[in-house]
Order: sequence, then C-alpha cells, then structure tokens
Amino acid sequence: MQLTFVQTLELIGTFAFAVSGATAAINKSYDIIGLLSLSFITAIGGGTIRDLLIGATPVAWMTNELSNTAIIAAAIIAALFFSYVKKLTRLLNIFDAIGLALFTITGINKGVAVGLPIPICIALGVITGAFGGLLRDVICGEQPILFTREIYAAASIAGGTIYVLAGHYTGISSDVVQSISIAVIVAIRLVSLHYNWQFPRLRG
Amino acid sequence: MQLTFVQTLELIGTFAFAVSGATAAINKSYDIIGLLSLSFITAIGGGTIRDLLIGATPVAWMTNELSNTAIIAAAIIAALFFSYVKKLTRLLNIFDAIGLALFTITGINKGVAVGLPIPICIALGVITGAFGGLLRDVICGEQPILFTREIYAAASIAGGTIYVLAGHYTGISSDVVQSISIAVIVAIRLVSLHYNWQFPRLRG
Amino acid sequence: MQLTFVQTLELIGTFAFAVSGATAAINKSYDIIGLLSLSFITAIGGGTIRDLLIGATPVAWMTNELSNTAIIAAAIIAALFFSYVKKLTRLLNIFDAIGLALFTITGINKGVAVGLPIPICIALGVITGAFGGLLRDVICGEQPILFTREIYAAASIAGGTIYVLAGHYTGISSDVVQSISIAVIVAIRLVSLHYNWQFPRLRG
Repeated sequence: MQLTFVQTLELIGTFAFAVSGATAAINKSYDIIGLLSLSFITAIGGGTIRDLLIGATPVAWMTNELSNTAIIAAAIIAALFFSYVKKLTRLLNIFDAIGLALFTITGINKGVAVGLPIPICIALGVITGAFGGLLRDVICGEQPILFTREIYAAASIAGGTIYVLAGHYTGISSDVVQSISIAVIVAIRLVSLHYNWQFPRLRG
Repeated sequence: MQLTFVQTLELIGTFAFAVSGATAAINKSYDIIGLLSLSFITAIGGGTIRDLLIGATPVAWMTNELSNTAIIAAAIIAALFFSYVKKLTRLLNIFDAIGLALFTITGINKGVAVGLPIPICIALGVITGAFGGLLRDVICGEQPILFTREIYAAASIAGGTIYVLAGHYTGISSDVVQSISIAVIVAIRLVSLHYNWQFPRLRG
Repeated sequence: MQLTFVQTLELIGTFAFAVSGATAAINKSYDIIGLLSLSFITAIGGGTIRDLLIGATPVAWMTNELSNTAIIAAAIIAALFFSYVKKLTRLLNIFDAIGLALFTITGINKGVAVGLPIPICIALGVITGAFGGLLRDVICGEQPILFTREIYAAASIAGGTIYVLAGHYTGISSDVVQSISIAVIVAIRLVSLHYNWQFPRLRG
C-alpha cells in the first residue's frame, strides 16, 4: 500500500488528535480503557458526528484500519513516554494544525458530495476538524477549549471558506485550491498560537 | 416566500431556543465560536437527535436556511444587546413555550410518519422540544434544568398525548387538534412558570 | 409470548442498567423526568450509539416494547423502594454483569451482520454494553466510572474476543460459544468486583 501525500498528512493529524485525547486521559488519571476510549473519541469524534449528520453509515473510522492503528499507537506512546511527549508540545501543535486542516477539507468534501448548501459544508468542515476535541472536553468534565480559547475553529472556517469559494467560483485546479486552503488553516492556527491571539470573551 | 402561521411560530420558537443557548454562552464567557455553536446546538439539538434516532438524514436543520438565519440572528442580537435581552425574560419565556409546543408536534409527526408506536412518538416530541436544552447544559457543565426544575418536558408530554390520542381516536380535524395541543403545552408551561410549580425532587 | 432464555437474560440486564440510571438520578435529586430519562439513557444508550454508528435506524429500543416496559418498571421501583434497592447491590451487580455480557454479544452480532472487521465488532460489543453508563455519568456531570474504576469494559472485551474468535476459527456450535462468552464476561466482572481488582490509573 502506497500512501498519498494527503493520506500521510491525514494520518499525522489523526495521530496528533489521538495524543491530545490520550493526554487528557492521563491528566485525569483514567485507566487504559479511558486512555483508548478518549484517544479514539478525540481523533474520530468529529468525523463521526459529521457522518451521522449526513447519514454516511457505517461511519468512516470503522473501516479505516490504518487510522485506527495510528490512534492506538498514539495512545500507547503517549502513556509510555508521557514525560517526553509533554516536551513535544510545539511539534504536536504543528501536527494538530495539520489534522485540523485536513479534516476540514475532508468534511467539506463529504458535504459537497451530498449536495448540501455551501455554509453547511463549511460547518461540516469545522465539525470534522474541531468537534472531536469538544467531545473530549465534555466527557472529561472540562469547559470546552473550542469555545473559550485560541483561534481554532476560526482557522478552519477561514480555510474552509477559501476552499469552497475558490473551488466553486474560480477555475483554479482543485489540487491547488486544496493546498492553499490547508496552508491557510495551518498558518492561521500556528501564527495565532505563537502570538497567543484569542477572540474576546463574551461578557454579560 | 410566504410563511404559514405555523412556520412563523416555529421560527419564533427557534429564535427563543437560540437565545437561551446564546445566554448560556455569554454567562460562561465563551467566545464567538462558543456563542454560535451553543446557539445552534440548543436550537437544533433536539430535532437532530430525533432525526438521527429515526434515520432521517441529512438531518433537517442542514437544509432549513430560514431557521439557521434566525439562529445566527438570535446569537448576534443576544451578544450585542445582552443587558436588554436579559430584561425580556417574560417575552422570551413565551417564545420558548411556543417553541416547545411546535417542536413537540413536529417531533410527533415525524415519528408517526415513520410508523413508530404511539408512546415512542410522544417521546420523540419531548426529545425534539427539550433535548436541545439538555445538550446545552451538558456541554456547559451545568446540571440539566430539564431534570431538576420546572414543568417543561411534562408540558410537552401532556400536549403531545392529547395530540396523538385525539388525532387517532376522534374525528376532530387535525388542524383543530394541533391548535389545541399547542395551546395546552404553552398554557401548562407558562402557568407553571408563573406559579413556580415544580415536580418534587427525588430523595434517596 | 414466550421469552427465550437469552431474551430473559437480556431483560434482566436491561432492568439492572435502568436501575443504575435511576439510582444516579435519585442521588442527584432529579425529578421524575430526570428519573425516567436517565433510566432510559443508561439502559438503551449503548445500543443506540451502536445502531447510529452502523446506520440501523430507527434504533432498536424504539420498537422493543418489552424492554421499554422493563425500564419504566425499574425506574419506578427504584424511586419507590430506594432504601431497599440500595441494599440489593450484590444482586444488582449480578444482573448488571448479565446485562453487560448479553449486550456485548448483541453488539458483536450486529457488527458481524453488517460485515465490519473483527476488532470493530468487538468494539461495538463494548459500546453496546458499557457506553450507556458513560452517557449516564457525562450527563450527571460525574467522572466516567468506565474510565476510572473497575474491570468492566475489559470483561466485555475478553468475552467478546472469545466469542468472535471461537465463532470464526473453531467448529464449536454458536450456542456453546455464546454461552461460554457470556459466562466469561459475567465471571470476570463479578470476580474482579469481589476482589476489587482495578487497572492501574495512569499518571502523568
């Protein structure tokens, strides 16, 4: 089996998402069941919600052996080498941004394939990229990072909008549009992380 | 486009549900992503769970542009004019009761259309009307209002039961039955709010 | 209607799961809506998630009148006789282990019927048996017992693995394989409860 470049990126992203789930499980002192469950839920939760919403069942992760192997590997590596993994925050952030970008594009493509309206396709991109982390936080009993900190969903929306509009209204080849959109999401995410940009919090 | 009276009521209810989600987001000091997400989840969460349970996908809200516009408008208005919106509690309670009633009827109709047993149809009415608020509370990390306070689901069950039984066992026209059921739900909800009626809490 | 032995066991398990949901509702001082909702969600939550993931809709519980009656009975009995029910912990643990075992087998069978890979079928068994309790804890705002304490999912995985492998690779009759797997799950669960075996908790 020869992985394409895009599949490789997606796998890297899946790995990073699973590590973030594993990290949450370790921080909560869960056991091995919690470790594996939370790694999976974080990595495939967003895509699962997307598939359920559009009726694409059995949901995608169930037949994606490679992705499932990456998730289990991520969980075990995170648990065994946690003190090292913690030091790799910067690298994991890059991987995570790649995952956010790739998952956004996958989500949009699935929405377009089902013929859903453009804004809904963009929403499906965000759901695919960001709602696994939302599930992770809700299950752990933490306030959702997605709703309170950092430019995360916004990066997905920005790149997703470019992807859909450029794909729809320009003649640029779909490969080029995809690459640009991925780059935009990764760039917005990492730059905003670096400078600690955040949206203002709402006040009552 | 000319909205029917029922569609207008449904839109008013959707607006109120979204405002309740937005209010929760503001009270939690979420950012704009949290504001929009929680407004949507509260407004369309119940109908989404219903659609998933019966297999009606893509779920309804994805193609309901008008409803989605109302939700975004509600979120923005709630965020910009929060100090005013807070003072409109009584009006919003009326809107919310209308939403509960209309969503209950929609949920039951969908269950009947799929040929489900009567008690399950009534349950689908309650899920449609009340489980968006349950999702809101669980995501925010709050104890579910639905389970602890006020006559809310019970109003939906009472009106829903009348709707199903009268529609099934009497010759009264379906429009009349529907109007009566809606009125019953709104009345039970608002009267119990006014007099602060609550179910007894369970004690171990 | 004549129940088979397996159906009777499944009903006993459903009853125990519902009691555990009702107990959580009573401990949280929910009202009757919370009592019924949480009893249902705990008892049918795992099977519902499984059915959604594989696209088996309307989900199974909606047309399982007997199971729904058992859930309502369990909720009412738990609420009315809570001081007695609390004393029956040991009996309820046996019932619960039976439920875990039967639900595991049902989940695996459904996965096999849809043609999913073996590890995914085992995962569907665990989801069917254990994720109703996960939903219960998340909705109540408690840390998931499934992730932190006791040998529960692990019993399901062990018995489920035997069930799938023996059914696939040996000539033993499916009835015998099923009985052995159920016995293994119940035994692992009850013995580990008795000796208070737990997985080590992860530490960061």
